[in-house]
Amino acid sequence: MYSSKIESFLKKKGITVGDRIEVKSGKGTFEGLLMPRIQGEEDILVLKLDNGYNIGLKFEEIDIKLIEKAKPRKKMPEAKEEKGEITILGCGGTIASKIDYKTGAVYPAITPEELRMTFPEIDKMAKIRSKSLFSLLSENMNAEHWKIIAKTISDEIKDGARGVVIMHGTDTMHYTSSALSFMLQNLPVPVVLVGAQRSSDRPSSENEMNMMNAIYCAKKDIGEVGVCMHASMNDDYCYLHHGTKVRKMHTSRRDAFRSINSAPIAAVNYRNDMFEVLSEYRKSSPKENFKVNTKINDNVALIYTHPNMKPELVESLGKYDGVVLVGTGLGHAPTNPSNDKIVKPILPAVKGLIDSGIPVVMSSQTISGRLCMRVYAAGRMLMNAGVIGDGADWTPETAYTKLCWVLGQTKDMKKVEELMMENVAGEISGRSLPMEEY
Amino acid sequence: MYSSKIESFLKKKGITVGDRIEVKSGKGTFEGLLMPRIQGEEDILVLKLDNGYNIGLKFEEIDIKLIEKAKPRKKMPEAKEEKGEITILGCGGTIASKIDYKTGAVYPAITPEELRMTFPEIDKMAKIRSKSLFSLLSENMNAEHWKIIAKTISDEIKDGARGVVIMHGTDTMHYTSSALSFMLQNLPVPVVLVGAQRSSDRPSSENEMNMMNAIYCAKKDIGEVGVCMHASMNDDYCYLHHGTKVRKMHTSRRDAFRSINSAPIAAVNYRNDMFEVLSEYRKSSPKENFKVNTKINDNVALIYTHPNMKPELVESLGKYDGVVLVGTGLGHAPTNPSNDKIVKPILPAVKGLIDSGIPVVMSSQTISGRLCMRVYAAGRMLMNAGVIGDGADWTPETAYTKLCWVLGQTKDMKKVEELMMENVAGEISGRSLPMEEY
Repeated sequence: MYSSKIESFLKKKGITVGDRIEVKSGKGTFEGLLMPRIQGEEDILVLKLDNGYNIGLKFEEIDIKLIEKAKPRKKMPEAKEEKGEITILGCGGTIASKIDYKTGAVYPAITPEELRMTFPEIDKMAKIRSKSLFSLLSENMNAEHWKIIAKTISDEIKDGARGVVIMHGTDTMHYTSSALSFMLQNLPVPVVLVGAQRSSDRPSSENEMNMMNAIYCAKKDIGEVGVCMHASMNDDYCYLHHGTKVRKMHTSRRDAFRSINSAPIAAVNYRNDMFEVLSEYRKSSPKENFKVNTKINDNVALIYTHPNMKPELVESLGKYDGVVLVGTGLGHAPTNPSNDKIVKPILPAVKGLIDSGIPVVMSSQTISGRLCMRVYAAGRMLMNAGVIGDGADWTPETAYTKLCWVLGQTKDMKKVEELMMENVAGEISGRSLPMEEY
Repeated sequence: MYSSKIESFLKKKGITVGDRIEVKSGKGTFEGLLMPRIQGEEDILVLKLDNGYNIGLKFEEIDIKLIEKAKPRKKMPEAKEEKGEITILGCGGTIASKIDYKTGAVYPAITPEELRMTFPEIDKMAKIRSKSLFSLLSENMNAEHWKIIAKTISDEIKDGARGVVIMHGTDTMHYTSSALSFMLQNLPVPVVLVGAQRSSDRPSSENEMNMMNAIYCAKKDIGEVGVCMHASMNDDYCYLHHGTKVRKMHTSRRDAFRSINSAPIAAVNYRNDMFEVLSEYRKSSPKENFKVNTKINDNVALIYTHPNMKPELVESLGKYDGVVLVGTGLGHAPTNPSNDKIVKPILPAVKGLIDSGIPVVMSSQTISGRLCMRVYAAGRMLMNAGVIGDGADWTPETAYTKLCWVLGQTKDMKKVEELMMENVAGEISGRSLPMEEY
């Protein structure tokens, strides 16, 4: 809400949020859509210019004219139920978002159908079938959504899809891509997650390039879950990342997604049929080998260690079925090997969890690099207590989704450890043994 | 411990861990120091070769000969109490570590004095005074240690030091550097944290270059806390990073430390007197303006949000004086604006904390980029609940040490928010307003 002064002025002029207006101010004359008030001063009017940028204008100085009332949003046709080569599943996120001029927030509103109407080129790429599963900003997604996505992918594949594209919010896209990597085994077709960092009514929206490249990848001979996103800050090409080795590494840049401890699968550009392979990837498996295993345990905590961390926090995790620690460096947490008086080690609490049958898995705040818990006293003490992860080079997020999935398969502590340390879906990169630098 | 078979064999031969031995195996003949057993198979003997690498050899196949018993560790002289130009404070960490052949772990053992004996070049750089504060691996450090370090730095400066170098473990070096940045205001001399990713008895130890460059930086006209670490994987030069803008970004690489949302202060190489300025930094303040403010509240939690996160975890934080969330993307957490039935939002729990007087601060798992909580419903709902941080580009770790420090200054919610959003020590980079891309 704007100040009552502005609100009553707008009412008098018959102007509501979303309308196209002209504003004369000391700074010049601007034409654009009236935005809802952004947090901050009440008497700053916010206008979305045609170049996609927002401008704030002090109300006193301005002269306002209505140009055009906002059009009511069009009703779009329901998803077609015909069979397609490529299935596009909509889960929400920015790639499927427009600004809601009532609340001012961006929210997921475009169905895959609408996207096809916006970018008709999509239909030139392949025979498309589309389906909207959810309209969620991805930070709200959880294991129940992962299961629904996995089940739908499986149904589409059984129904003949030769590739699946998933429109997904970027915040937790890498959690979903890794969870799906564990759930969908021996994939006979590619499963490609795609998103956008800017909504489709923004001038810099990269929806189209990401989407076209995702469809392009979904037609390749690939048997794993990938993430297709901008490779650079330009609209020149995308990376297709391994679903277990990717992570959002920037709040806003278009090239926010990066492969961690691995090269991407490929650099891709549908425009010139470029699919430059950068690392080994799984080819499509025979359809009869395809397995869907959505058993997953969502009662798992992801805990960031830090100075001043209270052992009580770890002690309070007794109701969880598993815990992933995001430790420091090579896989450390406060252990106090030198018996310093002012150190408060969490080691006894960690050991307590493990001794009570709750597996604890290590990952690192450094994001990049491999865990090696044999070098320092902290790591060795944690390993002796039973912490799992030495030698793994997973991200915290992949360690998390993997533990959820492994705990869906077994609760036996020994089997949990074995399965965690087994490379199930490319989440642990190989390394040379036994001569190695510790 | 090795298997009892190996242990009794070694005992018979009079060999203990740390001794130099010769081993004949199917792979060849190796000479090196007997290492303690590394987690894994009990009958693999581990030998540290003279090239610094470890090798594992199956016990059955080997023939063992004692070459030389391990020497007892030399007693080093106590720290000299003479006045110096540059004070080196030892806090432990890998830069001050050797392998403990009793336990096999690397642990901090070298005092600054010992380091001077190892690298006599240090004394050519400046008149050095050295002092050992702790021998801690840094994951064990907490706010009490930060206070002791800050107080000692202050004493040394008052006593005439024209620069201070702090030998520190790398795991949490960036927590300490940011905490010291808030505690030490208007610094009249540089304070430079330095560490190493490999212990000093390793062939690739970069102790010397980091240390020499740290001393070189400590002699410059700088009035802030910096971190001096390898800039590349070669021993060619270092970066001096801003203490609030740096983060360990790799578990093991020598160039693990990176500046986040900022360029480093400078690229430095003492060998050719290179100090190439890369970003603005504070020059030394007049000594009379120097202030030490070590008031800090360590009762602060750092919580990583994730899919399946339980609202109960947030609800259970009622005993903390402050909470930093490591959210997703632009500063999000599960809020469920679309009232999806299977979403479990933590928003009510977050609001509950804030309403009970506990400030909650946002940071992002993406590590890089600026928070912008005005774009999406999640961010707006969190801001409306009172979550602090919109527009900040701090790392999770700097947000954490800052909230600890701010809560040492005030408990007034309004003042906490004001101080958090004020750029106290370079932790929030400037940006252009009001025209801006949301």
